[in-house]
Amino acid sequence: MRWIGDDCAVVRADAYAAVSTDVMVDGTHFRLGARCGPEDAGWRALAGAASDLAAMGAAPGEAYLAIVLPDALSDEDALAVHAGAEACAASCGLTIAGGDLAAGPVLTIAVTVVGWAPAPEALVGRDGARPGDLVGVTGELGAAAAGLAVLEGRAQGPEALVARHLRPRPRMAEGAALAALGARAMLDLSDGLASDALRIAEASGARLDLDATRLPLAQGVDVVAVQLGMEPAELPATGGEDYELCACVAPGSRAAAEAAGLRWIGRVSAGAPAVTWTGAASAERWRGYEH
Amino acid sequence: MRWIGDDCAVVRADAYAAVSTDVMVDGTHFRLGARCGPEDAGWRALAGAASDLAAMGAAPGEAYLAIVLPDALSDEDALAVHAGAEACAASCGLTIAGGDLAAGPVLTIAVTVVGWAPAPEALVGRDGARPGDLVGVTGELGAAAAGLAVLEGRAQGPEALVARHLRPRPRMAEGAALAALGARAMLDLSDGLASDALRIAEASGARLDLDATRLPLAQGVDVVAVQLGMEPAELPATGGEDYELCACVAPGSRAAAEAAGLRWIGRVSAGAPAVTWTGAASAERWRGYEH
Repeated sequence: MRWIGDDCAVVRADAYAAVSTDVMVDGTHFRLGARCGPEDAGWRALAGAASDLAAMGAAPGEAYLAIVLPDALSDEDALAVHAGAEACAASCGLTIAGGDLAAGPVLTIAVTVVGWAPAPEALVGRDGARPGDLVGVTGELGAAAAGLAVLEGRAQGPEALVARHLRPRPRMAEGAALAALGARAMLDLSDGLASDALRIAEASGARLDLDATRLPLAQGVDVVAVQLGMEPAELPATGGEDYELCACVAPGSRAAAEAAGLRWIGRVSAGAPAVTWTGAASAERWRGYEH
Repeated sequence: MRWIGDDCAVVRADAYAAVSTDVMVDGTHFRLGARCGPEDAGWRALAGAASDLAAMGAAPGEAYLAIVLPDALSDEDALAVHAGAEACAASCGLTIAGGDLAAGPVLTIAVTVVGWAPAPEALVGRDGARPGDLVGVTGELGAAAAGLAVLEGRAQGPEALVARHLRPRPRMAEGAALAALGARAMLDLSDGLASDALRIAEASGARLDLDATRLPLAQGVDVVAVQLGMEPAELPATGGEDYELCACVAPGSRAAAEAAGLRWIGRVSAGAPAVTWTGAASAERWRGYEH
């Protein structure tokens, strides 16, 4: 990196840049209050964008942070937003290299992240899934949606779920490992598995057959689901912001992908682009989320 | 460019990236209404960020657009914001390669622009001004501040001033030409010449001696200034968003810099970092704007 604090940040580049922009708004993506502070909001906004780099296996580069601050928040609150984003960036290997601060009616955080790759082939898109590929996910699912229900008082459950909602961890290392072993298609679970898996299906021109009973659920998700009148799998299928990765991998890479953290939830098959579910009585309803 | 519409936009890079982020909010940076539509807002937000690339002489690359849309605006309005940004981007040689759209209380537009350079030396910072350098500006000054006064009904003046306020034109070509001829320091006039020139002085550790009578004023700025009870030079000195460039150039590059569009307004001299003014009775007041 050469200089920051000029008209632009100037950074050394690799051959290809992967760039993503996310904006989060108080009242839409989070609700500032006793249990969600400016630092949480900063973390979450950074995580949402960084997760897109993980989903392509890009090497973390720089993040740029535009903050709109309402009168009701202080300079300390602005610093807290930045500190939260900075903590998440550091955990992802990203450097906050620039930004902007403006006044407006509600806290709004726009994050642009830049990742790098030596060649386009080093990055994983959504369009490479082939019939016979295994479909897997990292980590545990449903924590963000269940945590939000607990946060909003719609259900009772472990505090750890709330923490997972407020401070999701982008899967940078797993994304890089899965790209390195040749994952064929990958994305991050930002809108819910039902709709996100359909994006892979549509981009790849293939069908994803998923087994709801195999979804790895975070602890307490089942308890929260019952209180909400849902099957446990419905929370990760229709609830967003888990920011785990979903990847399609050739069968020959099974062991390496498991070592990289994938757990299998289904298979890719020939057929019109769609997602089919087994093991879930309510799966018909999930289609509404397949936008 | 390889692909857009995946988790990230993926673009081919040059050796160095110059990146800037700007956010503009309805009610703070513009006021949507009969004379300022969503398309104008999109243009201005893009222009504000693109101007930072011009100020370093970076080759235009990509722009990323995060839009927060209130309920009161329609999908057509969102498209109009995008169309305005797209028109400005095209005029700058920038490609809009990605973005995000979210709901929120007021129209907010965050723009991140990426420019490229083959080497750090191809970019012009703020810190290279040396005693003896000539100080010049591109274009005509004061139009944005005067246009805003006309737009808000605080003065009467040519409609062209309003257009200059609503649709500023980043000086991409001039910035590139000035970088190519070895300009030593450069920035874009976003906050007003008095405070922006001080930034060069402070970064370079030198004094800028400016002559207010030599500022090239846009037509009608003098008439508007009189109505506002100001000296004409006060508008460009204290009014932001002209987005013209201010550059410091070695005397040997005088002719080339003039050919690139610079007009001389002063000199760099040895001394503590400061901006001195001649030819303006009100210059003492301008210090308040120096930050």
